Amino acid sequence: MRAAPAELLSPASIAIIGASDDVAKTASRPLRYLRGGGFGGAVYPIARRGTVMGERAFPSLAALPERPDHAFVLLPTEGAMEAVAECARLGIPAVTVLAGGFSEAGPEGAEREEALRDMLRGSGTRLLGPNSIGLVNLHHRMVLTANAAFAEPDLPLGGAFVASQSGSMIGAILSRGRGRGLGFAGLVSVGAEVDLELGAICASTLDDPQVTSYLLFLETLRGADALRDFARGAAERGKPVIAYKLGRSVEAAELAESHTGALAGEDDVADALLRDCGIARVETLEGLLEAPALLRRLPIRPAGARRPRVGVVTTTGGGAAMVVDNLGVRGVAVEPPSESTRAKLAAAGIDPGHGRILDLTLAGVKPEVMGAALGALLAAPEFDVVVAVAGSSSRFQPELVVQPVVEAARNGAHIASFCVPEAPQALAMLAEAGVPAFRTPEACADAIIAAFSRRAPRPRAAVPPASAGCAYMLDEAEAYELLADIGVPHAPCMALPAARAGQEGLPFPYPVAVKILHRDILHKTDLGGVVLGVSSDTALAEAAGRIVASVAERRPALSAGRVLVQAMTKPLGEVLVGYRRDPQVGPIILLAAGGIMTEIYRDRSVRLAPVDPDEAREMIAEVRALRALEGYRGKPRGDMEALVAAIVALSRLVERGDVAECEINPLMVLEEGRGVLAVDAVIRLEGGSR
Amino acid sequence: MRAAPAELLSPASIAIIGASDDVAKTASRPLRYLRGGGFGGAVYPIARRGTVMGERAFPSLAALPERPDHAFVLLPTEGAMEAVAECARLGIPAVTVLAGGFSEAGPEGAEREEALRDMLRGSGTRLLGPNSIGLVNLHHRMVLTANAAFAEPDLPLGGAFVASQSGSMIGAILSRGRGRGLGFAGLVSVGAEVDLELGAICASTLDDPQVTSYLLFLETLRGADALRDFARGAAERGKPVIAYKLGRSVEAAELAESHTGALAGEDDVADALLRDCGIARVETLEGLLEAPALLRRLPIRPAGARRPRVGVVTTTGGGAAMVVDNLGVRGVAVEPPSESTRAKLAAAGIDPGHGRILDLTLAGVKPEVMGAALGALLAAPEFDVVVAVAGSSSRFQPELVVQPVVEAARNGAHIASFCVPEAPQALAMLAEAGVPAFRTPEACADAIIAAFSRRAPRPRAAVPPASAGCAYMLDEAEAYELLADIGVPHAPCMALPAARAGQEGLPFPYPVAVKILHRDILHKTDLGGVVLGVSSDTALAEAAGRIVASVAERRPALSAGRVLVQAMTKPLGEVLVGYRRDPQVGPIILLAAGGIMTEIYRDRSVRLAPVDPDEAREMIAEVRALRALEGYRGKPRGDMEALVAAIVALSRLVERGDVAECEINPLMVLEEGRGVLAVDAVIRLEGGSR
Repeated sequence: MRAAPAELLSPASIAIIGASDDVAKTASRPLRYLRGGGFGGAVYPIARRGTVMGERAFPSLAALPERPDHAFVLLPTEGAMEAVAECARLGIPAVTVLAGGFSEAGPEGAEREEALRDMLRGSGTRLLGPNSIGLVNLHHRMVLTANAAFAEPDLPLGGAFVASQSGSMIGAILSRGRGRGLGFAGLVSVGAEVDLELGAICASTLDDPQVTSYLLFLETLRGADALRDFARGAAERGKPVIAYKLGRSVEAAELAESHTGALAGEDDVADALLRDCGIARVETLEGLLEAPALLRRLPIRPAGARRPRVGVVTTTGGGAAMVVDNLGVRGVAVEPPSESTRAKLAAAGIDPGHGRILDLTLAGVKPEVMGAALGALLAAPEFDVVVAVAGSSSRFQPELVVQPVVEAARNGAHIASFCVPEAPQALAMLAEAGVPAFRTPEACADAIIAAFSRRAPRPRAAVPPASAGCAYMLDEAEAYELLADIGVPHAPCMALPAARAGQEGLPFPYPVAVKILHRDILHKTDLGGVVLGVSSDTALAEAAGRIVASVAERRPALSAGRVLVQAMTKPLGEVLVGYRRDPQVGPIILLAAGGIMTEIYRDRSVRLAPVDPDEAREMIAEVRALRALEGYRGKPRGDMEALVAAIVALSRLVERGDVAECEINPLMVLEEGRGVLAVDAVIRLEGGSR
Repeated sequence: MRAAPAELLSPASIAIIGASDDVAKTASRPLRYLRGGGFGGAVYPIARRGTVMGERAFPSLAALPERPDHAFVLLPTEGAMEAVAECARLGIPAVTVLAGGFSEAGPEGAEREEALRDMLRGSGTRLLGPNSIGLVNLHHRMVLTANAAFAEPDLPLGGAFVASQSGSMIGAILSRGRGRGLGFAGLVSVGAEVDLELGAICASTLDDPQVTSYLLFLETLRGADALRDFARGAAERGKPVIAYKLGRSVEAAELAESHTGALAGEDDVADALLRDCGIARVETLEGLLEAPALLRRLPIRPAGARRPRVGVVTTTGGGAAMVVDNLGVRGVAVEPPSESTRAKLAAAGIDPGHGRILDLTLAGVKPEVMGAALGALLAAPEFDVVVAVAGSSSRFQPELVVQPVVEAARNGAHIASFCVPEAPQALAMLAEAGVPAFRTPEACADAIIAAFSRRAPRPRAAVPPASAGCAYMLDEAEAYELLADIGVPHAPCMALPAARAGQEGLPFPYPVAVKILHRDILHKTDLGGVVLGVSSDTALAEAAGRIVASVAERRPALSAGRVLVQAMTKPLGEVLVGYRRDPQVGPIILLAAGGIMTEIYRDRSVRLAPVDPDEAREMIAEVRALRALEGYRGKPRGDMEALVAAIVALSRLVERGDVAECEINPLMVLEEGRGVLAVDAVIRLEGGSR
């Protein structure tokens, strides 16, 4: 991956093309903010008039005494295009474009975007935007943006680096960070990512010791490869990456599309990519700001680890219960201390009580009591994180609350704290000490769940290039052959001309299903191409004839004359397993319960392919309907290990360049020890001759 | 309902029993806070020492110069009991008890609680608590609490009255309100509600013009009748009641139980009660604080109203999309303006764009542009609420943002606003002007959904008292008779001795189901008591014999010798409809999709019985699985009106004193026009002889 050039975020000199002298205008801001922020390098306003804000202005880039490192183009679309062309001619390392009017603005805009790319090609110039409101490197004192939020003095310094697809959000995040006592290393509005993608921009800061975490505000997914490379670099350096991504609802996904001109894609596919990259996803805006401190402390959990457990100690039962509830509704349980931990608490003079949380009541206001309780819980092997929930004292005697938590945090990394009242001072003191602290129970639970859901980034799968040639479907019998090749069993079946059906013996017993067999028929039932429960040779002959006649009537051009006869099985349950090469994120594997309910509940699990058995088990655990196959309420267990093997095998289709899509629906899950059987399958190949 | 006496919240004189002179002690706080708050009435410390905090103290209640209106008892459990006894003897109107040690503390505590009740009986004394940290009436300058949060000067005055089952939360809510620029009329820690229940306490303030809304923090449900009476009174006066209730997760429900000694109950039953009372439920802590302004403005929607629609206007697309997303994931759609509204916007010189939200971009920072846009959206008939989402200017030029919103709010009540950056000043100005304003996208969506979900309070159903006598089950044939009586059809069936099965003609065709018929057999299948798909007289005789033998082997004492023969039907879908008298909230009606999936997805809808057809339709809409019966993806529609009729009929069992429980599982839903059929039913009667 080509990371953004250092000149993007740390230029020695900056040209502001189209700087305005009118403070009411947006184009006046970058110069003012650069000066207000105390930028140490050279700044060259470029404008028609001779001075801007009392500074000498230059008529053109060519008139500057040196080639600037970075040009911020504030001109409207057409002027911006010309300016970029000149930057490219001069080989200016970094150029940022404020204007819109590109691919989000219809076909003409898309042409302009293509023209921009042409200008950059081979020029040595990299572009941020278009549609970028600018970027800020606080440690470099570079406030190069038209976002009004940066007019404030004393911008809050810290370790978080923000990259946002929404320009206005960099300002909102800045001010909300300040309100919470949290600071930033830099903030970038990545704009349309025509050249520099979000991942490449972030990657250029990976070795900056002043950057300790990354916060991403995503409207959609773009630049999956750059994102992955950056995220892996961040993981290697122990710097967590946290994303707030719009599009959990259909409405917002559609909005992202119309708003940014990007292809929104399905949210759970985006989710799979983020997970695969080792990026933690939060669902609350404040969770985004508050999560880094927690993620820096919690180890990444491997797929297949036991269910995470949360311990809670508090002086205020009602306040703590809010955290328990918010975790519980999202499937993470707060657990009581073990017998051994209870004994240790008792030995330290602390009543362990009987509940799920350790409620010290007023006694816990004493730092030594809270300290001892936290020590015991943090030393207990049963907890993956311990949350200290503070009551009124966090507002009135913040030092009393902060001291034991900060001390405990020295010995036990897996700690978090939530203050029930409005307690800005305690929160700021905790932040200062690097202790994860949360202002709301919702953000607290959100960050904990994001931390637990995060996985180690995986290297991109080596995907052979898609084969050349046209795409075409396999017929069902051919699809079973391919599945058999990769180790996925199917129900016994036999392909034959319809005219011969029922004329010879079957290698499996009745009853059978009879289906039309043709590469170009995807929805067999719609054409009258399926008969189930056929019980005799005569019935088979009759069914085959009926099927062929029905299909011939509706699709005469196909001359479909063959049928597939298939043994019928009575399974414990059915699932859908699908594989496809997603245009944005690459090969994915999908597991869903079969049937209409899956669509209604959107009950499915998606991962980037390939997956290993632990990941396949995690997918099974995520599909709620499949609990019915795990020995639910005394029913027999399904053969889950066979299902795991089938998921893994299908996900390995990534190793073949010729499979574009493969969907088994249904895959029958039989009782434990009896395996799984594909009962219908659709495979689309790419390349080759048919 | 007996509301709390006026002396509880507006006493002229107060005794503090057990007031401490040691500022380190909790028992020193009430006197200090009363004095600090400037309470105008008489205050009598009662303590062993002669002075407390420099004031004259009295040795006992009897030694006081007058009978005080309200006594706050700060003594530990045993002392508190004695003090309450004396208060009752003296007929002091209101007494508040801080101590715990009652029913939450096991059998001994429960005995003490009973003793408390005995003391109060007939005494003219009403009790707040025990386990109450006190109460505050800010307009009366009465700060009568041991909660440390009330040490602050200048407590924020306002219209919200808070009643909390968690004592510490009154302090947390107070400080969070202050942080948000929101004030309070009063705050009460209701404690264990042994005598005065939350509803009775709130009811005593209904006619206080300084109280404009109610915020409830609930750990569990208690005092359903008092809650209902109060909530109806509040609705009559146009004062919204909003509840944050713990227990959405199993873990937190259990916690509430262990923490407060209350019976937690099922959360969706609690939800049904709150809805029936006209109480809006929020899911976020900040939503609780911020919702009142919105609920005071939005009309209550009737059951059966069209799906609510939200309009959004903004200067910042990314920020607005967060609100859209949070609404969308909870099923409320932000809709684009209609053609006619778009035309009006265009006529006002505003580009209506093409998206779901009206994104004015920077142009919208001009108050006249935002004003015109808001005016057009608020005048449009398609929107039930219009959300103005403000960007950076809400932080830097709050007046620019606030002015058009406040002006629009004069003409259009159904408005809300969300500030994307940290913008405390704009939020405070909006609050001051009575315009609903939200600090986070999560709370904004939460309050909107709470407002839409709120219903007009219903009068309590007239429920005949449960019949005396023992409870017993009906057998399946008897259950069908009762169902037929109330108008719920069942599949054709015939009860007969097993020995006669297959010996005579059936009044309906084969295939049939055969089931053991006995009042004391609930789980027929477990005993081998069911055979399905029986197709001939011979097979019927054989099946009946087999069933009786199987049951005789497993439960010989029952001498079960009769069977039910029932026509089999092929339905479009199955549902479960249940009715029962819940011990806490009274009769409820439940609708769920049949089968295992319902349990796994907890996909059900609960209401207090009886319901009318609109409410039954709303229940159907809430059960997601039932979308499969509404013509989903080209499948035939089920007979939803017959289902509505069955739900309504079952819910009217409330009119009978003798039915404790009735569950139809499954109720088969046939194709439109063909009705519904009960295919199994369990009915438990109360009273009568069996």
